[in-house]
Parts: sequence; C-alpha cells; structure tokens
Amino acid sequence: MKQRVGQYLMDAVYAAGVDKVFGVPGDFNLAFLDDIISHDHIEWIGNTNELNASYATDGYARINGLGAMVTTFGVGELSTVNGIAGSYAERVPVIAITGAPTRAVEEAGKFVHHSLGEGTFDDYRKMFEPITTAQGYITPENATTEIPRLINAAIQERRPVHLHLPIDVALAEIEVSETFQPEALPQQDVQKYVNMIEDKLKSASQPLIIAGHEINSFNLHEELEEIVDRTNIPVVQLSLGKGAFNEENPHYVGIFDGEIAEDKIKEYVNNSDAILNIGAKLTDSATAGFSYQFDIDDVVMINHKNFKMNDTVANDVTLPSLVHALKGLNFKNENDYPQYERPQAHNYELNNQPLTQETYFNMMQDFIQLDDVLIAEQGTSFFGAYDLALYKDNTFIGQPLWGSIGYTLPATLGTQIANPHRRNVLLIGDGSLQLTVQSLSTMIRQDLKPIIFVINNDGYTVERMIHGMKEPYNDIKMWDYKALPAVFGGDNVAVHDVNNSEELMQAFEDIKAHNDRMHYVEVKMAVEDAPTKLSEIAKAFASQNK
Amino acid sequence: MKQRVGQYLMDAVYAAGVDKVFGVPGDFNLAFLDDIISHDHIEWIGNTNELNASYATDGYARINGLGAMVTTFGVGELSTVNGIAGSYAERVPVIAITGAPTRAVEEAGKFVHHSLGEGTFDDYRKMFEPITTAQGYITPENATTEIPRLINAAIQERRPVHLHLPIDVALAEIEVSETFQPEALPQQDVQKYVNMIEDKLKSASQPLIIAGHEINSFNLHEELEEIVDRTNIPVVQLSLGKGAFNEENPHYVGIFDGEIAEDKIKEYVNNSDAILNIGAKLTDSATAGFSYQFDIDDVVMINHKNFKMNDTVANDVTLPSLVHALKGLNFKNENDYPQYERPQAHNYELNNQPLTQETYFNMMQDFIQLDDVLIAEQGTSFFGAYDLALYKDNTFIGQPLWGSIGYTLPATLGTQIANPHRRNVLLIGDGSLQLTVQSLSTMIRQDLKPIIFVINNDGYTVERMIHGMKEPYNDIKMWDYKALPAVFGGDNVAVHDVNNSEELMQAFEDIKAHNDRMHYVEVKMAVEDAPTKLSEIAKAFASQNK
Repeated sequence: MKQRVGQYLMDAVYAAGVDKVFGVPGDFNLAFLDDIISHDHIEWIGNTNELNASYATDGYARINGLGAMVTTFGVGELSTVNGIAGSYAERVPVIAITGAPTRAVEEAGKFVHHSLGEGTFDDYRKMFEPITTAQGYITPENATTEIPRLINAAIQERRPVHLHLPIDVALAEIEVSETFQPEALPQQDVQKYVNMIEDKLKSASQPLIIAGHEINSFNLHEELEEIVDRTNIPVVQLSLGKGAFNEENPHYVGIFDGEIAEDKIKEYVNNSDAILNIGAKLTDSATAGFSYQFDIDDVVMINHKNFKMNDTVANDVTLPSLVHALKGLNFKNENDYPQYERPQAHNYELNNQPLTQETYFNMMQDFIQLDDVLIAEQGTSFFGAYDLALYKDNTFIGQPLWGSIGYTLPATLGTQIANPHRRNVLLIGDGSLQLTVQSLSTMIRQDLKPIIFVINNDGYTVERMIHGMKEPYNDIKMWDYKALPAVFGGDNVAVHDVNNSEELMQAFEDIKAHNDRMHYVEVKMAVEDAPTKLSEIAKAFASQNK
Repeated sequence: MKQRVGQYLMDAVYAAGVDKVFGVPGDFNLAFLDDIISHDHIEWIGNTNELNASYATDGYARINGLGAMVTTFGVGELSTVNGIAGSYAERVPVIAITGAPTRAVEEAGKFVHHSLGEGTFDDYRKMFEPITTAQGYITPENATTEIPRLINAAIQERRPVHLHLPIDVALAEIEVSETFQPEALPQQDVQKYVNMIEDKLKSASQPLIIAGHEINSFNLHEELEEIVDRTNIPVVQLSLGKGAFNEENPHYVGIFDGEIAEDKIKEYVNNSDAILNIGAKLTDSATAGFSYQFDIDDVVMINHKNFKMNDTVANDVTLPSLVHALKGLNFKNENDYPQYERPQAHNYELNNQPLTQETYFNMMQDFIQLDDVLIAEQGTSFFGAYDLALYKDNTFIGQPLWGSIGYTLPATLGTQIANPHRRNVLLIGDGSLQLTVQSLSTMIRQDLKPIIFVINNDGYTVERMIHGMKEPYNDIKMWDYKALPAVFGGDNVAVHDVNNSEELMQAFEDIKAHNDRMHYVEVKMAVEDAPTKLSEIAKAFASQNK
C-alpha cells in the first residue's frame, strides 16, 4: 500500500492508542497537518502556545497511556523542552514530532527562518537528547523502521521520544507492507530477584512497600494490589505518585513524607527491617528534604531498569517484569501495622469568616467523588491535596518531581480531553495560573467541562514559605481572575466567587447541580496562609539551599 | 573587599550597563534575588513566565546594548531556550543566569525537584551549548575570572551566554580586589581586506552595500553612514535588520527583498558588479526565498568573524574592526543609482468601510514619529511594517530570522523599560498575542505606556498565506481582546476599537493627545487580507517546503 510518511506516522500513532494530537501550526509542519486533519480517527487540538501543548500532551498521556504532539522547527520545539523534560522526569510517554525544513534545504545549509542562521540543522535535535529516551531523523527509507522503534521506545520506557520530520519526508510516498502494532517489552525471567526479596520479607518483623509514580506510569495498580493482598505487606505511598496504591485497601498505611508524616506512620516506616521500594523515588519534595530515618542502602530498590538489593544491581530488569513476578511471592506477613485513617467527613464549620487553607482542603475532602480526576498544581494546592483521601477509581495528577509551575492548567486540558466523561477537578493558584493562562481558552474552544478552583492569595505562596515572605519578587500583579472565562469566549462557564466556607459550599452545590458546564471558582485566601505540609517542606527546602 | 558572589555578579552586570534584571523566582534563586533587590542601581522585573522573561530581556538588550535575566534550574531555564536561541540567531547579547541546587546536593547526586530524578545535574547546561556563545559553572574560586569572561563574551559576540550559579555559590563570600570593567574586542589590523575591497569597488560600475542586522547588534550605524557618505556607494537594506541604515540618507536605495522588491531596486541590485554585504544574512524570509539574481559567490561577505571575498576567508576578523577600517576607503563612486522614494504622505481616504491591511499601513506611515521605537510581530504586522519609511532616530525591531510568534509583546516590555522616554509602538496580531498575552500584565504592573495595535483577523494569517487558507489548524479561539487590559489590572489603559479608517484616525488623535497613558487598539480586519509582501513571501515559503 502506498502512503505518505505523514499518513503512516498518524496511522502508527493511532494504532498505539492516540486519538488526539496536540500542537501549534508552523510552516514546516502545515502540509503534514493536512494528514492529521484528514485522518479518520485522529483529532487535531490546536494550542495557544507550544509549552502549553507539551503540558496538555503530558496530561493526556497520563490518562490515555500515550500522547503525541506536533510543533515546528526551532521556535516551536524549543518552547516544549520544559514540558518534555517534565514528562521524562516523571515517566510520561509523549511522542514529540517536529516538522522541519526539507532535506534539500538542510543539505544546502541554507539560512532559513527558524534556523540559527549558521547553516546548521542538528542543534535542536541534540538539545532533546538529555530529555528524551530515543530520538530519530525520519526519512522515506527508514520511516517504517524508525517510527515503530521510536513509538515502542516511548511505550516501553514510559518516556518521551523526539521525531525530526522534514516536511518533504512527511509528504513523500512510501510502500507500506504492514501497519504498525505496538510491542510491550517481553516478560523477563526475574525469579532470582523474587527469591532474594522473599527471603528478606519472610524474616522481617516490619516489612513495608513504598509505592511510587512508576506504578502509575506503567499502569501496574492491579498487580501491586494483588501482591499486597496476597502477602499482607503494608503500603505507604509518596506524594510523588499518589494514586499508585488504592487508598481504600486495608493494607494501606498512608502517605509517607519523611519527618512530617503522622507519628505512627513515621514510626513504622523508619523502623521497618525490610523496605521494598516499588517504582518510587525518594525525592526531596516527597520526603521533606530526605528526612527519613531508615538506611537507604538497606532498601530494596525496584525502579524501571534499576534494581538494587544490597550488592546486587541490575540495570536491565523492567518494572513490569518484576512486579508481575512478585505476584508469585508465597508467604503471608503476620505482623501488625498501622491502618490508614481516612480524614473525618464534614470536618469544618460553615460561616462567613475568611476562608483558611485548612478549611478549604477539609471541604475539598467531601467534594471529591468516586471517579474524579484530581489535578493539583505544585503550590499550596499540591501540598494541601496530597493529604486528601482518595477512592480506588480516582486519579491524582501532580508534578512534584519536575515541579514546573503553570503545568496543571494545560495538563487539565489534556486529562479532560482524554476522557470527557470523567469529572476533572483542578486545584491551582494565581501565580501558577498566570504562567499558562491562555490554555483556558483552548478548554473553552474544545467545550470541555472541568471544574477549576483558582486560589487568589496574591503571589507565589510556595516561594514565600521557602524564602522571602514579604519580598517583592514573590508578589504578582492582581488580575480580575473571574473575568478570564468571558475574555476567552467562555460565555457558558459558571463563574463563582468564594470568600468563605459558606460561599464555597454554595459553589460545590451549584457544581453538583449543573454538571453540564465548566465551573471556574475564584477562592480568596490570606497571603501568608498555607497548608501545614507546605510550611514544613518549605523549611526543608530552605535549609537544603544553604 | 568581601562580597557575596551574587553581589559581585550584580555589580559586574551593572558595570556592563544593565540596570534592569528580568526573570521569575524559584527556590534555587530566591536568596540570590535578595542581592538583586537590595542592589543600589539594579531593579528586578518579575515576569509572568520564563519565556516571556527571555523575550523581554532580548527587547531590553536591543535598546540597551545588553540584557540580563535570572531563572531557576530546569523548569525555569528550559522555558527560556526558545527566547535565548532567538537572541543567538539575531545576535542580541543576553546574560542568562540559572539559580541551581547547591554543589553539595549535586555532588551527592540527590534526587531533588527540578532535576530529572536521575542524579545528574549537567543535562540542562549542555542544552544551552548550541544556543549560547559561552557557558560557565560559577564557583567561589572562579567567580572573578568566569563572570568577566562570560559577560565580555556576550558583549564581544553580541550573543547570549549562560551562567550556572549554584545557590550556595551565590551566597558564598569572596575577596574582590577589583570591580569588573567590560572589554571591547581590540581593534584588528585589517588593512589588507580594506585594500582588496577598495580595488573591487573602484572599478565597479554598479557598486552596492547590503546592510543588515549585525550593524544593529554592534551599533555601527554612524560608522556605516560615514563610509557611505565618503564613498557615495548606494545602500539597500534587508527586512532582517531594518534600521541598519538611515533611510533619510541620500545614498539609501530602499529595501531589497529579492524578486518582490521594486523594479528599479531589483535591477540595480541584481546587476551590481560589486556587492559589499555588511552584517547582513540573505535569509529566505529576507529575500523571498533566495530569489536574488546576482551570484552570491561574487558578494564580499562581511559578517562578524566571517569574512569572505573570492577565495579569501577569515574567521577571526571582527565586524567592528572591519567597519572601522572601511572608513579609510579613499575613492568616490560616480555612478548613478536609484534614489529611495519615501511613501507618499496621506495616501489614504477616511471612511467607514472595513479597514484593509493596505490602508492600515498607509495610515501607520503617517503615524510614526521621529524618535519612535517600532516593534513588528512576525506576521502580517512585520510584512507590512518593513516597507514603512523610517526616520534616522527610529528603531525598528522585528525577528525575521528567528521568527518566533509571540515574541514582540514581551519584547516591548523590554524595549519600553529600557527607555521609558521613547514612544514604543507595537504592531501585533491576535494569533501571536495569544502565545504570550500575560506579559501585558507586566507592562501594566510596571506602569509602562507603549502603544499597542492588535490586529484581530481571527487566526494565523501568516500561516494561512503559506498553506491552509481555510484549514481549521489556522483558526484560533475568538477572544474579547479589548477586555484584556482591565483583566490585567490596567484600569488606566486607553482602549480603542477600530473597524475602519475613520476610527483608526480617531485613535491616532487620541493617542497623540494623551501620551501619558498606555494605549491599546484592537483593529479588526478581514481574515484573508494581508500585506502584498506577505502574500509573495508566503508563496516562496510554500514552494521551499516541497
């Protein structure tokens, strides 16, 4: 069958499970966009800028399992590198396609626009090497091998890949003998590691699993739960990767965040004599500045292609293989461990006093519904939200390792469009919203109906807590936040003004009563108020910078 | 004298001529920001996001001669690379400072936020190598040598440099024996090249100078004009670098843009037997797709550190040295050449018909004042504006080589703050405005008073002209553009609604009458209307992509 390379690429992307492609047009990708627009199963989602497109693709991929985006050479692709690096750090698979000048222009070393004006064409590709798991220069000759290699790499590593696609190549016709089918990594024989782990766990008096974000990346929730139910080993999870373990499972202990964790959790974790770290990374933000008391060298580290137990190190063992094999663990833990206590319901009083962060999150706990996608911006929102108790079918999305403020507004465009039927609840603050505000217009354009809570507390509160509480660099310009939906054409968006708990409850009720609309809630809170967890972690960050 | 490295750096930046530093706070730069805030002569300009900060710094540097910005590790610095690459391509000197984790954190390979979570810390620095002229990792030991080396490199090459500044280094005290003083490159002996050039020009019947953007970068306008006045050699300039030559000078011929130039200009240029290219690059956008008829191998190419005449090539000759030496050319051209004819004044009719692009730019010609800074976005705005006739003291800013849409709104923040006393006039369109709209809030916050014309023609017109006139990927969401200043807190901004030439004239008059306010003008024009030059260049771009 004859196809243009661009058509083959879109068929492959679709076969891999992607039905929305994000991006921004540019003259080196325009003709290729025709093959996206005309594709029977793929929809083009035009974005307001490329960084927002990369965040949206990341959000889409976190729900959908894989995402794809198209930008233009230089100006377009370089605006995405922050987003792509975030996908790399947090293991989100994104196919980043750059429409580029023709091979003839490149070979002639022409001074074309979007180049550095030096006749070189490989500078930007090189810049993607540290932040993608694989890179390729597509030609008509290699298209049917390179495109499969790159898409498979994204899926298998759960990390972004970069495709350099000269526009003449996108338009070139090739002979295609078979359509692409994605390949999972083969199941490896890892029984020897399972045996080592079993020996350690069997003899332990306080065994523990720390579950982390790679469980989400590789979608291993069911298998992890099966392991836990079979062995009775209790589980803590980190704020990084919250959602890796079902918080309704009786073996769940709670969030471990170093010295700021609840006493009984801290006590169990720090005194554990057999810690299995599955897919977690003990980062500074997840552990309040590495404030754990256990010896990290004693932890069995199971990360994707990074297994370590005492002196045994293996850099070829995949996470899915090992988690799959751990279902064969054949013993039952009989020791006691603390049970997770879900936060009390209705733990607040309705009044007309200024709303506090504490009441806000206590009320939010009641607001969450069974199947919600909860997205929390890396500011006060995340540090308040990661302590909320979730249901099994909730999805929680934050970005605590990469921590790029402004990420969640465009990410919510992506999560909501990946599944318009689930209720998406975004918790964000004013400082973050300002970075990527125009993505709200794309949500409106796509007629999406997320629920957006914008904390207006007049500045970068997360930074204030770390350093410079009253310094001018943590101030921002006060905006008329409530006017934004209308400015962006969202005449049908329900806008709510919340100053106190009574008004927040009214907003909640209106949201529940009218689930056919986007809701946008401005929540005013005091400048120096913050969730307790944020205050504590901020102190750790400040001390780390000395 | 004892100083913190951060203080020494700010003193050095100030000594190099910078009194505003742009950026966004982040926890790896916060404590360093204290030394900016407390500096006697430097003002911190907080931005809404890092890409906007990089564009603003570029704009500031184009007026001021040098710019500086501070962002945070990873998430911050990676959001600037598109802006920094643009500064590199178009030779704008920017000092890009990254506040980074401490050396102790880096040495321990800790999994800190904003890292890729792999224990590596050099990935982002490497990504800056292709787009900066020099890079350095600052330590207390090397601060007084590396900081001077890097600032001097930015000044001497008129290109960005990257400083990696661990936060503990910024706070470390060092002994400073002398304050930094910037060094210009030494004057080179280039007489032999001048002699070669003189021989060629003397015998020519149609000698010509093509002047370009490096004249602006190195601020060589006066010297170039002296050469021209002395030798009577006529000058054309490109759209890339418009402003390199005084358009009021009698030796000015006009803009040369390949086959779409005026006939008499084309005829002279294409038949010239001695072309001196001074600081220009004959890019696709500047020459309507390389559509010149002269033999490029016969052109004497004088670019910074890139001299070429026949078989003589020198990669060490600086542009300032050669331009300076060319003032010694000792002959007078006696041949005829076409004179630049300034566009007719009042070449339009006032009525209430829908405004056309043609009338818009004809009216804009009359609106420009002697000392204006005119900034034109790389869409219909630039392609209409580069044909406007300027006065000697105007400054024209566009970005036709790098061509990143959205650049000019934040760039105008930079140009206006570099000199609040000059009138800044920004011409931009809706599609571009959407990319970087939040920088308008920073202008309002800084109480700047530029004049902003926003063409609302419902989409990416520049892309439509190249490919996909009616394709959905060139559509954008319609915004209520006039509401934006108020949303961003600009209650004192004068907002104008323009649908026809009568209303545009009223807006002009109001702007002239009230020069103590920011003016923001929404100008509605038809979707498929475009300046003639854009239609022509777009055809060339489309054909280049085949």
